Amino acid sequence: MTMSVQTVERRNSVSQAIAEITEVLGDRISTSQAVRDQHGKDTTWNPGHAPDAVAFVDNTEEVQKVVQICSRYAVPVVAYGTGTSLEGHITCPHGGISIDMNNMNQVLEVNPQDFDVRVQPGVTRKQLNEYIRDQGLFFPIDPGADASLGGMTATRASGTNAVRYGTMRDNVLSLTAVMANGEIVRTARRAKKSSAGYDLTRLMVGSEGTLGVITEICLKLHGIPESIAAGVCPFPSIEAACNAAITCIQMGIPIARVELVDAENLRAFNAYSNLGLKEEPTLFVEFHGSEAGAREQVDTFAAIADELGGGPFDWATNEEDRLKLWQARHDGYWAIKSMVPGKESLGTDVCVPISRLAECVEETRLDLEKHGLYGPILGHVGDGNFHVVLFCDRNDAAEVKATEEFLYRLAMRAIAMDGTCTGEHGIGSGKRKFLEAEHGPGVAVMRTIKQALDPKNIMNPGKILP
Amino acid sequence: MTMSVQTVERRNSVSQAIAEITEVLGDRISTSQAVRDQHGKDTTWNPGHAPDAVAFVDNTEEVQKVVQICSRYAVPVVAYGTGTSLEGHITCPHGGISIDMNNMNQVLEVNPQDFDVRVQPGVTRKQLNEYIRDQGLFFPIDPGADASLGGMTATRASGTNAVRYGTMRDNVLSLTAVMANGEIVRTARRAKKSSAGYDLTRLMVGSEGTLGVITEICLKLHGIPESIAAGVCPFPSIEAACNAAITCIQMGIPIARVELVDAENLRAFNAYSNLGLKEEPTLFVEFHGSEAGAREQVDTFAAIADELGGGPFDWATNEEDRLKLWQARHDGYWAIKSMVPGKESLGTDVCVPISRLAECVEETRLDLEKHGLYGPILGHVGDGNFHVVLFCDRNDAAEVKATEEFLYRLAMRAIAMDGTCTGEHGIGSGKRKFLEAEHGPGVAVMRTIKQALDPKNIMNPGKILP
Repeated sequence: MTMSVQTVERRNSVSQAIAEITEVLGDRISTSQAVRDQHGKDTTWNPGHAPDAVAFVDNTEEVQKVVQICSRYAVPVVAYGTGTSLEGHITCPHGGISIDMNNMNQVLEVNPQDFDVRVQPGVTRKQLNEYIRDQGLFFPIDPGADASLGGMTATRASGTNAVRYGTMRDNVLSLTAVMANGEIVRTARRAKKSSAGYDLTRLMVGSEGTLGVITEICLKLHGIPESIAAGVCPFPSIEAACNAAITCIQMGIPIARVELVDAENLRAFNAYSNLGLKEEPTLFVEFHGSEAGAREQVDTFAAIADELGGGPFDWATNEEDRLKLWQARHDGYWAIKSMVPGKESLGTDVCVPISRLAECVEETRLDLEKHGLYGPILGHVGDGNFHVVLFCDRNDAAEVKATEEFLYRLAMRAIAMDGTCTGEHGIGSGKRKFLEAEHGPGVAVMRTIKQALDPKNIMNPGKILP
Repeated sequence: MTMSVQTVERRNSVSQAIAEITEVLGDRISTSQAVRDQHGKDTTWNPGHAPDAVAFVDNTEEVQKVVQICSRYAVPVVAYGTGTSLEGHITCPHGGISIDMNNMNQVLEVNPQDFDVRVQPGVTRKQLNEYIRDQGLFFPIDPGADASLGGMTATRASGTNAVRYGTMRDNVLSLTAVMANGEIVRTARRAKKSSAGYDLTRLMVGSEGTLGVITEICLKLHGIPESIAAGVCPFPSIEAACNAAITCIQMGIPIARVELVDAENLRAFNAYSNLGLKEEPTLFVEFHGSEAGAREQVDTFAAIADELGGGPFDWATNEEDRLKLWQARHDGYWAIKSMVPGKESLGTDVCVPISRLAECVEETRLDLEKHGLYGPILGHVGDGNFHVVLFCDRNDAAEVKATEEFLYRLAMRAIAMDGTCTGEHGIGSGKRKFLEAEHGPGVAVMRTIKQALDPKNIMNPGKILP
């Protein structure tokens, strides 16, 4: 096999870059096949592409040096946290250097009076919550996986608590990033609000590493509520369950979590965790407040559920019962996976205006049924966001085709309802094909920004933009 | 007087542009001196610059045509709402076309189930609240003036309710803008959250017309709370008042408004509105919730105030008493103005981490005293944001100099405390000199974006970027 001139040139550039990075990091750069493969594969069904090398950095200045070297040789740079992303964010289709952020795992500063904290990007959400619990504070964003806060910032993560506490968009106060030209930029200061210039923080949140590498994040924190009540409530239909959530929000109940779990899921949960729950569409809910406040929310929710034919509403405030309940919800993925042994799973998500949610979920359920696909549905119903967990044998061409066609119909259905092809997983490489349908001329604006800030296209190339 | 070649060329371009816009708008373009002057002057002490003409547009397509014509002739475009901005946002230092948005004043669609509304940019916040009140909904952002929602979006406005409901950053779901190249871009769909690509909504919110002209906005709404309690509480010191606010937030009380009013202000309020309030640092507060919930917040706040030596806490839930209270707060500006007859006023604002607020306010008070300046202080204390209202005789060179030096020290003091030179008024032309001190290398990122999206610099030139 002969190599093209371009390929030879690329190989030389990459070798040069690796040699120079080695001068900076010593033995903290690896070209071992196992390390490269592990950094090229996320939790999707996509086989992934390995980087040419993995750099294990200790601080912002090292990231800057790596980026400067990669910029000189036009070699791709892809940041790596916990590898738990779901749309191929961290794979390296054009090779290059994967920057592993896991050594940057320090909580740098807690400001309890200001309800904020400064962390390095390798800190995971559970590590952070462990660290700040003593001070009566918590960080609410919970995407399920114990992801790194850098990765959560880059993908604009959210999860079960978003209905009350918002997403990473709302909870990042400022961040520091190394841009494509090697400049270190801090996007904002620590004031809670500002109207001083363009919102660079929000530009970077959700940019999936395509504009810069995030090396420090200042996050908003919240006080641990005095009282937490959690419960489950079955409903006669998905529509009734959705309407209960809508009514809650309409009445101004500051519900902290409201998760729709369909009957299919309940069957899996019962089989896996022996929960003995009714196998009907069910809401898992949680209320935060003072003791009287949480209790008032529980009572109001129970009345709403009753009026919509739901119930009985089974709830608890003690920690053990609450944790058992949410553990079942978080184990949902494994419960479902155990129903389909030997197949690869893939989780997808869309988000629609809440008024269209019941319709969108129902159409999706019928679509699955019609095409003989197994795909339980879980939803962050307070946000109009839901997930389908699909299973596929990648060696079965017909099944792969049916799955891909379903994913296409699902994304287009959400977009047609004035929703988005992804509420929280991100675009990565997997959903680039939907960006044009969703954003139209907005894609050209995004591309203009990308080209202006990263003219050599070294920052996570092949992601977001089609 | 002879004109330079450039000046002649510019005049010809502007005349051509006006002629072509006249073909589109007929008599809805004005070059009368009075109309031009009125559109070039905002509520600052800055004399302002008039545009060459004012275009009164009816819809997005007309805005597009005006922008396309202006782009062809490289003529500046400046959007105009109510003219209530405070940092020279709408003045036209390079002439050009002021686009008056006041004919675009329709509420286009209310989606009560989704808690959102689609409006044209000329609708004011009071008009919107009037329109949606029947449906049990309200729009919380309240910057004081009855500003247009387009202007509020462009300047990332906030105000007294931001501590609970956030700012325009948090309450704009999506918007439509005509970009510098004439493309109509809708920044996002109507889903409550999305992780599909760059956050173009947040890029446009706060961009002050320098990237595009906003022609439609989709805003989040909130349910009118069942019960509202409002009150006033004096404190022995500014520090004690700030600490009361911090403690409230730390305890998770979802306080809806918490406004610091200094003793100087109280003297003015009493003289103007005959309120009979103690002339001490005072918090004006408001609580939203269920009847029991609001009452619980009142009781907790009263206990906190008592512990910090504050009180008595005088509160009410009936509408008449509440409105009287907030009217006094909103009349604050006029009350203060009446203390200094015949001088021009200028309101400025900064925002710091809440832990630094008491210190920043106190240093500012001493600074005013030291330099013999009269400047009552009002603060959105839950956000660390405060205002100083200054008075100046523009014909007194020494007073102008002292005022400008004070403004410089105030902005730099806030930045040194890891705060911002403006929490809600924006940069406009007045605060461009502080952008570098606040954002450092971030300014270059902003400039790159601006140049990429508006290469001819026709969108509100001379604003934000230094």
